[in-house]
Amino acid sequence: MDWLIIVAGGSGKRMGNHLPKQFMEIGGKPILMHTLERLHSSQPHARMILVLPQQYYSLWQGLCKEHSFKLTLHIVFGGETRFHSVKNGLSVIPEGEDGVVGVHDGVRPFVSAEVIADCMAAARKTGAALPAVKPVESVRIQQDGDVTVPFNRDKCLLVQTPQCFSVRLLRCAYQQDYIPDFTDDASVVEALGHQVTIVDGNRENIKLTNPSDLLWADVLLKNS
Amino acid sequence: MDWLIIVAGGSGKRMGNHLPKQFMEIGGKPILMHTLERLHSSQPHARMILVLPQQYYSLWQGLCKEHSFKLTLHIVFGGETRFHSVKNGLSVIPEGEDGVVGVHDGVRPFVSAEVIADCMAAARKTGAALPAVKPVESVRIQQDGDVTVPFNRDKCLLVQTPQCFSVRLLRCAYQQDYIPDFTDDASVVEALGHQVTIVDGNRENIKLTNPSDLLWADVLLKNS
Repeated sequence: MDWLIIVAGGSGKRMGNHLPKQFMEIGGKPILMHTLERLHSSQPHARMILVLPQQYYSLWQGLCKEHSFKLTLHIVFGGETRFHSVKNGLSVIPEGEDGVVGVHDGVRPFVSAEVIADCMAAARKTGAALPAVKPVESVRIQQDGDVTVPFNRDKCLLVQTPQCFSVRLLRCAYQQDYIPDFTDDASVVEALGHQVTIVDGNRENIKLTNPSDLLWADVLLKNS
Repeated sequence: MDWLIIVAGGSGKRMGNHLPKQFMEIGGKPILMHTLERLHSSQPHARMILVLPQQYYSLWQGLCKEHSFKLTLHIVFGGETRFHSVKNGLSVIPEGEDGVVGVHDGVRPFVSAEVIADCMAAARKTGAALPAVKPVESVRIQQDGDVTVPFNRDKCLLVQTPQCFSVRLLRCAYQQDYIPDFTDDASVVEALGHQVTIVDGNRENIKLTNPSDLLWADVLLKNS
């Protein structure tokens, strides 16, 4: 059995709006619903676990009713950090499961079906995989103080989700104590000494972070 | 006297279109005209030097007529690489000039007036400045072979233009022999041992590179 954990626990402080961004609408529907539908259509047999902020559970229930949203989801509540949220999501997966689990940001509705499939397949083979793209821009690295130096952009990767893992490996990784270096799931798995495979991401798979991203999201939606 | 060199020498191979991207239209006007107008409205007293591919000079003249485009420009032809193109542009600036020169990508029409002004002002003070933004995504660095390791994104900068310099410094830098490490103007100046100041870029100041960027450009144009 394969699994998808969708992390929508953020309070969206960067959006300049009181409503967390996963609940904001594009094309007349909350971003999170687009994300869930995209994942389900790519992996129809995977079970989906949605991690929600507890205080927005009733809002989400209202939205599901309003939009007649009927996908089957296990809902769990978010924790203090992303680490704790994913850990809560993992707790839903029964002991002994040996499939693959993809952890995806709720505010990345434009991941392609191909990227999801590639990443799940890579994780099945190597235990851990994530999608990434190279930056279009030149890259510089900040050293001490204000000093910056050029860096070869071909060696730089911008990380996307879903980050995919064997269930057993991810569960084992999340038994470690939390440290602030755990900024994504890959970093938690790497702390076990396990390497992560990179697959090609799709450039449209942006994390909707800033208000102007919503304009872009509307365009992508119309053209997808 | 201040100067702006607009580099539009690329053949736009990444766009999947026979017309180089600087001549493609957004909002009914070639991208390059939007860029030139944005620079001129921010720095109305700066002289503008446009570096064009020689084989597109007559196309450009036709577009200017068609769009009644009347900004005063010194036009020079592009060279083999960006280095050679900028060097050709610099050759227009009279000896003894001691102002500031900004070098800008012709396919970055959405640079803000504030970023241009900040960067020119910083260059006046320190000799060399460029705008940059931090990535929204997590960052990884490729090491030997397929091995990648996480990298603190707060230490990573995505470089934009205009890259701005004292005219004297940039001219001196461009007297060096070309090496492939000269991927942008900052790298040429740094080869002299001169440090580059970073100013905050604006996130909309994207380099129109891929076909889907044109959709985004249309949205930004309507909302700018």
